Formats: sequence, C-alpha cells, structure tokens
Amino acid sequence: MEDVKQYMKKVGQQARAASRLMAQASTNAKNHALENIATAIQLGSARLIAENAKDVAAAKANGLDAASVDRLTLTEKTIKGMVEGLQQIAQLADPIGEIDGMHYRPSGIQVGKMRVPLGVIGIIYESRPNVTADAAGLCLKSGNAAILRGGSEAIHSNQAIAACVHQGLREAGLPETAVQVVNTTDRAAVGELITMKDYVDVIVPRGGKELIERVSSEARIPVIKHLHGVCHVYIDDEADLHKAIRIADNAKTHRYGVCNAMETLLVNANVAAKVLPELCRIYLDKGVELRGDEASRKLVPQMKVATEEDWHTEYLAAILSIRVVADLDEALAHIATYGSQHTDSIVTENYSKAMRFLREVDSSSVMVNASTRFADGFEYGLGAEIGISTDKIHARGPVGLEGLTSQKYIVLGSGQIRI
Amino acid sequence: MEDVKQYMKKVGQQARAASRLMAQASTNAKNHALENIATAIQLGSARLIAENAKDVAAAKANGLDAASVDRLTLTEKTIKGMVEGLQQIAQLADPIGEIDGMHYRPSGIQVGKMRVPLGVIGIIYESRPNVTADAAGLCLKSGNAAILRGGSEAIHSNQAIAACVHQGLREAGLPETAVQVVNTTDRAAVGELITMKDYVDVIVPRGGKELIERVSSEARIPVIKHLHGVCHVYIDDEADLHKAIRIADNAKTHRYGVCNAMETLLVNANVAAKVLPELCRIYLDKGVELRGDEASRKLVPQMKVATEEDWHTEYLAAILSIRVVADLDEALAHIATYGSQHTDSIVTENYSKAMRFLREVDSSSVMVNASTRFADGFEYGLGAEIGISTDKIHARGPVGLEGLTSQKYIVLGSGQIRI
Repeated sequence: MEDVKQYMKKVGQQARAASRLMAQASTNAKNHALENIATAIQLGSARLIAENAKDVAAAKANGLDAASVDRLTLTEKTIKGMVEGLQQIAQLADPIGEIDGMHYRPSGIQVGKMRVPLGVIGIIYESRPNVTADAAGLCLKSGNAAILRGGSEAIHSNQAIAACVHQGLREAGLPETAVQVVNTTDRAAVGELITMKDYVDVIVPRGGKELIERVSSEARIPVIKHLHGVCHVYIDDEADLHKAIRIADNAKTHRYGVCNAMETLLVNANVAAKVLPELCRIYLDKGVELRGDEASRKLVPQMKVATEEDWHTEYLAAILSIRVVADLDEALAHIATYGSQHTDSIVTENYSKAMRFLREVDSSSVMVNASTRFADGFEYGLGAEIGISTDKIHARGPVGLEGLTSQKYIVLGSGQIRI
Repeated sequence: MEDVKQYMKKVGQQARAASRLMAQASTNAKNHALENIATAIQLGSARLIAENAKDVAAAKANGLDAASVDRLTLTEKTIKGMVEGLQQIAQLADPIGEIDGMHYRPSGIQVGKMRVPLGVIGIIYESRPNVTADAAGLCLKSGNAAILRGGSEAIHSNQAIAACVHQGLREAGLPETAVQVVNTTDRAAVGELITMKDYVDVIVPRGGKELIERVSSEARIPVIKHLHGVCHVYIDDEADLHKAIRIADNAKTHRYGVCNAMETLLVNANVAAKVLPELCRIYLDKGVELRGDEASRKLVPQMKVATEEDWHTEYLAAILSIRVVADLDEALAHIATYGSQHTDSIVTENYSKAMRFLREVDSSSVMVNASTRFADGFEYGLGAEIGISTDKIHARGPVGLEGLTSQKYIVLGSGQIRI
C-alpha cells in the first residue's frame, strides 16, 4: 500500500514535469510522435497479439464473462483501428496556441484568449486495450501528459502498447513520461490517481456505470464524466411520419449497446394510431422487446407493461419503452423527469415546436428530425472523442481535443497602466 | 441540525424548480427584473441602511475587526454602486440561447452549440452585503437560479436586500425563488449547500483564503474558485525602461489589497542597475517595504532580505519582493515555481521573448507591456465579474456571465438516420 502511494507519487511528479514540456511541444513534434506510435503498433502487431494472448488466457482461466473477453481481445482488425485512429489524430488541427477574440479595450490594451493544455490527464478504463493508444493520442495532440490506468486484466496488452507509445515519443524527441501506463494492478493505484491534486488536473473515467460512479464519488480532482444515456425520440402530431418511422427505427435498432441509442419513444396521441402499429411491426421483426403504457398497448397488444422503473432505465439492449403523450408539454415534462440529459430528439415539421424543444430540453445534445445516434464526436466533426460528457461544467456532449484544453487570457499592451 | 438539513433541502428544491423557469425567461423579463431590483434598492435605501445598522452594531459589540466592519457597512455610496451594477448587468447582452458554429456535416445534419444556463448556482461570501445584489444580478441575467449564503454578521442587511430582489423578480413575473438568501446563520447550512448535488450545479466562494479552502476541500459539487494571486512583473533587458518603471509602479502601488497587484518583481541582471535605484525610490517614497535577493540589495541597500517564504507570499499589502534574474529562462522558472497561475506580465520590446512569455507562462492572464492590474472583468470588457478563477477547468481568469453558462450541442436535421 505504501509502495503504491510512493509509486503513484513518482508517476504524478514525472507527469507534471512532462506536461510542461508537452505544452511547449511543436505541432510537428506531436504529429511525428503520433505517426511514429502508429508505425510502432503496426510493426509490432505480432508482439501485441502475443502479449494480449497472455491476458486473454488469464481472463478465461479466471472465468471472465464472454463479453469482457471479447472487449479484451486484440485482433488484426482492432490493431488496424488503433493505427488509423492515431493517424487521424495526427491530421487534426492543433488546438494549442490558438488565439481567439483579440480586441482593443478603451484603455488601449488588446485582450483575447489563447488555448492551452489542461496539464495532466488521468484516464481510468476497463478491459479494452485499444483505449490505451486512443487516449494517449488525444492527450498527446492536445499538449497534455497522460497517466493511463487500464483494467488489471489487460496489463500485458497495455504495457506492450505503452512500449510502442514510448518508442514513438522518443523518436520524436518528446519525453516518454508524457504517457505513463500504470504498471501495478493494485486497485489502490486508482485511489491515489483520483486524489493527487498536485499532479493531476482532470480525470476521465471510461467504462461502465459502476466505475464512473466510484471515480466521481471518490475523486478530489475534476472529472469529465458520462453517466447514463436514457435518450428519447418524441414523435409530434405535426411530424412527417415517414421521417418519424425511419428515425425512431434507426435510433433504437442501429446499435443496441450504445449510450446514444433511444431507450424511450414518446408519441403524440393524435398520431399514435397511425405510427405505432407500423413502427412496432419493424421493431418486433427485429426482435425488439416492447414495453408500453396503457394507450400504446391498446394499439400494439404484443407490448409488455412498462413500469415506472422502465422510464428511468438505460436498457443498452433490444428493449424499448413506449409512451403516448397528449402534447409537447407532456413530452418535455417526461424528458425532464426521466431523461439523463444525454440526447433527445423531436420529429416535427412545426417550427415553433422545434424551437421550443431545442431551447427547453436540457440535454447535452438536442435534435430536430435526426436520429439520436448522431450524438458522437466523429459525426459532429470533432475528429475523435475521449467520451461524451453529461456534465454541464467545462465540457458537455462529445468531448474531443478541445475538451482536453483550457483558455487563458492574453493581454498585449504598449505600456498601459491602470488609472 | 436536522432542521437546517430540511430547510436547505427545501431551498434546493425550490431553486431547482425556479432554474427551469429562469432558463426559459425572456431577455426582456430578466432585464425588467434587474431594473426593478435596482429601483427597489434605490427607493429602499433608508431601510437598507437602518437594517445594516443593526448588523454593524452587533459586529462592533462582538469585537469584529475594523476592516471587517468597514466591509460590512452600507453607505449611500455602496448602495449607489449596487444600483449602478444592476443597471449595467441589465444592459449586457443576454448570453442565453446564443447559437454558435452551426455547420453542415457530410451526413446532412447541421451541428452547432447553444448557450444555456448552468442551473443552480450557490454563492458563499463573507461580510460584504453588496455581493448579495451583485451575485443575484449576474445569476439572474445568465438564466440561473441562485442560493446566496452571506456572512452571518450581515444577516439583516442581506435579508433587506433580498426583499428588494424578490420585489423586482415578482414585478417582472419571474419566480421569487430564483434568488434565495439563506436565512439561517447556522454554519451547517454551508455544509449542506456544498454537498446538495441534486439541487446545486456549481459553487462560487467569494472571500478570503480560509473560506475558499474550506469550501473547495469539502464541496461535492464543482467549485469556481480563486486562490492566491502571487503576480509577477518581469523587466527584460530589452524592455523600454520608461514603460517598465510605469508598469512596475502601477502594478504594485495602484491598490495594495487586490489579487491582481504585483507581489514579486523580477529584473534582468543587465538592466537591474539602471532600473532598480529609480524604481525603488518611487516605492520607498510611497512607503512600500522592499525585500530583495542579494543582487538587488547591492543596488538598493534600503531593502530587507527576502526569504524563500517571500517568493511564495501574496502580501496584499505595501510590501514587494524583488529578485534579479539572469535571463528570460530564469524568470520563467521563477514564475513556474513560485507563481499562483493568476496574472504575470513581461516588459520587453523583443518579439520572440514576448511570444515565449505569452505561450509558456501558465497563468490565467499573461501580459506583455501592461500592468497586472488590468486582470479584471470590467477591464477585459466582460461588463461584470463574479470573480477570477485560477482553475483551468470550465472558467479561467475573470468570470463574467459566460462563466455562469454552458453550451449544449444542437442538431438540425431533415430526417437523417445514421448508416
């Protein structure tokens, strides 16, 4: 325990020192490092797969569930994904040093803002080893130092990827300590990481609800976090029903296990009889379990009864809850009560109702006539994302490079003093 | 104790409910409320002064120090200041609903960001009752609900100002619970306020170091905070010495007790003999106590010896520490080691050194050829400020209306689904 404390302190101090160098690193050096890391991973893929096999074997021996083993396993395809991800990050514009809004004030000074790194970013994740490359790349490009703490079941894979990252940094003349992968599986390391105020500026937990809740409640450092995604689509009575059916189908069935999938469908009572039978036919054909309120079940008898708990639930599965509402106000009230402030969409052709929905729904993404599945850093054009934030402070919604930066004020004078 | 918990929970629930209405309030209604509050304070000034007299008498009876009594006392002048402050906030542009960066993506959706309130803001302050009007005004204009907890010694004054605020809100058709002034002097109320995650979105402590440290360490809600202001001016060997002397004089002596006053002067060794005697003459004439390193004391024998502790100290007084440095690198290293990431300024005519200073100093305001005293919301054109943040997350530097808001993504589609 004392050893872990000492070890993490050293990691923290090294990260802080590296962060100062990374903040000054040229765009060129950072891009070279990213490309070098990509190459090292590509050339080292056989070794990565061999190291990964150790983790996979141990995981199976320890009885880890199949889904976790699947997330843990590196294949030629996931390795290609890592390589391409790093190359894409290299191609993104460098946010650091960007100057905005310089304007003269009556005093004669010129004031604006310069974008700067946050400093040291601690990332805590679970079994997926590709997060190691991905998170390292985003932190590096945004001029930060990173401390990565992956799942203990992926320790060999993560250390092998870390070796590629270090090689890439070294070849670009950047400090290897800019990206450190915690090399102990002791859980106390997480406790240290999330409380080392002097060495870590922000924590990004990536993983399931339990991990995020533990990290948020114990951290003494700001956390960029993503909690639940209880997303809604509201089909208004002035919706184009063709669009409505396509969007409601896509929002639920494009992928089930993702945070931006719809979990509850709200349908205006005036169009429920026109929409629900056709739409539910599609869901049932795709094997989606439907749970409805009384009004929906009258229209589609195959539905189960939705309970109060259903409205709160992020299924992350082929299950959908459905409710018929009287009007936009009832839809807004439902979303305010049961939503998770993640992503909600209205389908309507009515301008005033679209504007009200945009303004009044307090979620990180609010949409009109589009599938909730678009709430994503790549779809929004951020180029990459470190996660989706459901917080309001600092970063909200998909978090790309910019979310890993801050802005300082800069003042250009010519000798001004305050009078 | 149980009563305080129940009371604060009720305050929190009312604030949350009011925040939903405030987020939708029109610019017109918010401005009317601000003007009405200003009028109510103006017309009620006799009553405010009478209520304030009760607090002042009690404070004197309790042996409160003279400086605190001074901060507590309301005069015609401070009341005029409150009234004008509110009128100024009414004239600022409404940040809420502002839409930025809408652009089309290859999928056909249009993505951008809409500025929204944070929700409920808890403000904890000390003896100055004018903060009540000021903070209420900023929260109101930015569409938030506020819970204000002033010093117990100002309870009568704060409740009297609160009555004016409520009258103004009521007359504008906005909920009175949009601004609640905690009516108990029990310190447990602060403990509740900073941990009521469900009802409060951000905490802004305004006051001395102890208050801020207590609030930051115990809060379970994000805190926008200002710690120390150990500000530096570095006079480079390529400085225009006329500008250098004016700036170094102004940065220290314009006002002593403010966070953006210079506390340490760094002078390049090549110009120390030219600058320090003349500059220190000015300081000594104004009664500033000087504490220097060996090299500076050789040039100005009246200086006391600066200890290691001096370099860390925010004097907030007519005291200045002075150090002679070999070059820009040594100045940067000093600022990185001893600075508080608040405000630092370089005086130089050299372009490359100015650019390096701007980029490399990791402070909330970094200046070239200007007095550190400009680090201020009014001087930067924010119109008003709720404080200066020395954090990097969310808001950095002077925090105006924008710092009390967040941005959500909005997506305008025409039926797009994700493929």
